[in-house]
Amino acid sequence: MARLLQALFLTASAGRALASCAYGTFLHPRAEGEEVPVATFGYTGVIGPHNWAALELPTNNACATGTRQSPIDMVANVFEVIPASDVTIEVNDMPDGADFENLGSTVEVITQGGTLAFDGKTFELQQFHFHLPSEHLDNGTSQAMEMHMVWQSAAAEIAVVGLYINIATGEVTTNITAPATKREITSRSRLFGKRQAQAPVAGATGPTTLLETIFSVVDQISTPGTKVKTPPLVMSEVVDLIKAGSFQAYSGSLTTPPCSEGVNWRVSTQKLSISPASFVKARDVIGFNSRFPQNTPGQPNILMVSALGSAAAAVSLSSTPAKAA
Amino acid sequence: MARLLQALFLTASAGRALASCAYGTFLHPRAEGEEVPVATFGYTGVIGPHNWAALELPTNNACATGTRQSPIDMVANVFEVIPASDVTIEVNDMPDGADFENLGSTVEVITQGGTLAFDGKTFELQQFHFHLPSEHLDNGTSQAMEMHMVWQSAAAEIAVVGLYINIATGEVTTNITAPATKREITSRSRLFGKRQAQAPVAGATGPTTLLETIFSVVDQISTPGTKVKTPPLVMSEVVDLIKAGSFQAYSGSLTTPPCSEGVNWRVSTQKLSISPASFVKARDVIGFNSRFPQNTPGQPNILMVSALGSAAAAVSLSSTPAKAA
Repeated sequence: MARLLQALFLTASAGRALASCAYGTFLHPRAEGEEVPVATFGYTGVIGPHNWAALELPTNNACATGTRQSPIDMVANVFEVIPASDVTIEVNDMPDGADFENLGSTVEVITQGGTLAFDGKTFELQQFHFHLPSEHLDNGTSQAMEMHMVWQSAAAEIAVVGLYINIATGEVTTNITAPATKREITSRSRLFGKRQAQAPVAGATGPTTLLETIFSVVDQISTPGTKVKTPPLVMSEVVDLIKAGSFQAYSGSLTTPPCSEGVNWRVSTQKLSISPASFVKARDVIGFNSRFPQNTPGQPNILMVSALGSAAAAVSLSSTPAKAA
Repeated sequence: MARLLQALFLTASAGRALASCAYGTFLHPRAEGEEVPVATFGYTGVIGPHNWAALELPTNNACATGTRQSPIDMVANVFEVIPASDVTIEVNDMPDGADFENLGSTVEVITQGGTLAFDGKTFELQQFHFHLPSEHLDNGTSQAMEMHMVWQSAAAEIAVVGLYINIATGEVTTNITAPATKREITSRSRLFGKRQAQAPVAGATGPTTLLETIFSVVDQISTPGTKVKTPPLVMSEVVDLIKAGSFQAYSGSLTTPPCSEGVNWRVSTQKLSISPASFVKARDVIGFNSRFPQNTPGQPNILMVSALGSAAAAVSLSSTPAKAA
């Protein structure tokens, strides 16, 4: 037992040494020419979400002690449903493209203005970034990816609009700029009234153009710390989609260190879609960046629950012979 | 602080009360007519993987204290590469179909014989089941799903063959029995020498027929405790694929309670593929059943690392004013 604890303390110290600047990269766009900062926290082992608090005490305390942490399983009664029509949401198009950065912990698009307003408060869009697989669970169900649009008010209050990303089940082509050359594709596209070149099948959904556009260049930022300019980005497709649905709203936290609480979560009931080919491209760069689901808001932090059980197991272990299988 | 600990103990007690039979469903096929058992452990909150040890002490101790736990991030130096040609692997076809069960914690196919042999030891195939998203990470990268083929020796030693499942990026049809009616599809299929009806595109991969067949009926077992008979299952496709690659081998654990160690993991370098439509069908039944990545084999259990950090954060919290953002 003493040896175990010694090993644990050594591990914890190693974790702390790695932690010099584990946060602070979340919100703020970089100035022109400034380097892309690379996160020092990660998603596995001693720099992973089980040890985020220890990476920077007391700054990251909430990661281990907060009782309204995100992400969560979005089941009935943990959120309030708000019609999107009750919320003002506007996002500027980016006709010259946008900076798309690999922060090590995520890939992030630096936006060029946008407004979210509710409850008499106004928030400005700072950036949006991606998680793979989804961080929130949609009524117990993991989604392929999740997009987080991060907004900040003048009073430094934060709102995040979450959008699940599904794998598109329609027939898709990987070349989004290719014209529809086959008669069948053209006629089907007309039949379903879709604007994209892809040929949807009955009951299937085609990919979101914004995502196909952004991830068409993700392979150019496969190294953390690099950035690329995206093709022109039209935001109305996603904004219109959001406006046509409602929000699942709850008060939670940042899903990365320092895990600050008081974040206004607005998870959209409308989902984006990504083609299988773009998903694979995104996955090969992002890897894995999903914090494990947190406890129900208002309940003890799941790591506190876990710590008790682990302590009990450690005590039990020292007095019980190990079992092989 | 006293109030926090009180809340924690209450939560832990609640967890324990839910734990009457949290394991024992992992290995053994059911007798004819026997009910499908439903797991009492889960993947979120107090019945989730952060509290599995406390669900049944000391049986589940290894979940919180074991130092060779699975799944892990499969990075260099944590596994040994073994050519599949060094391993004997045979799996019986199931011409009359197989029982496909929803255990609450996974969906599982009860197999009808198969042999895995290595190092002078012989294992019999018991079942295979699915995780979504993948439990192991492929060099830091999450995969859409993972299939676990579970084998047991006469001495009750366990081996698990892990197979990552990718989203198929080829053009796919959802009807796997449909004949190829278009000239183009037929000629492309011949060109690439594929046996399936789907039309692959250059550089893309079509779905694995076994998976398309199994998941064609997954919507019939959407309720935990139910089962269905699959269409006939041909296993040679997957066995041949496995034999053409190599294994990433390491000694780990069950990824579900009781998290027993000494499990011979053999993760294949060959990947299966699933069509987007079948993936969505599988996802809508499975939901989310991926244990978080464990620490590097031989290092302290990540929950023990976490417990130290959490304790430090709790102490720090009681002496530091809370920070809002």
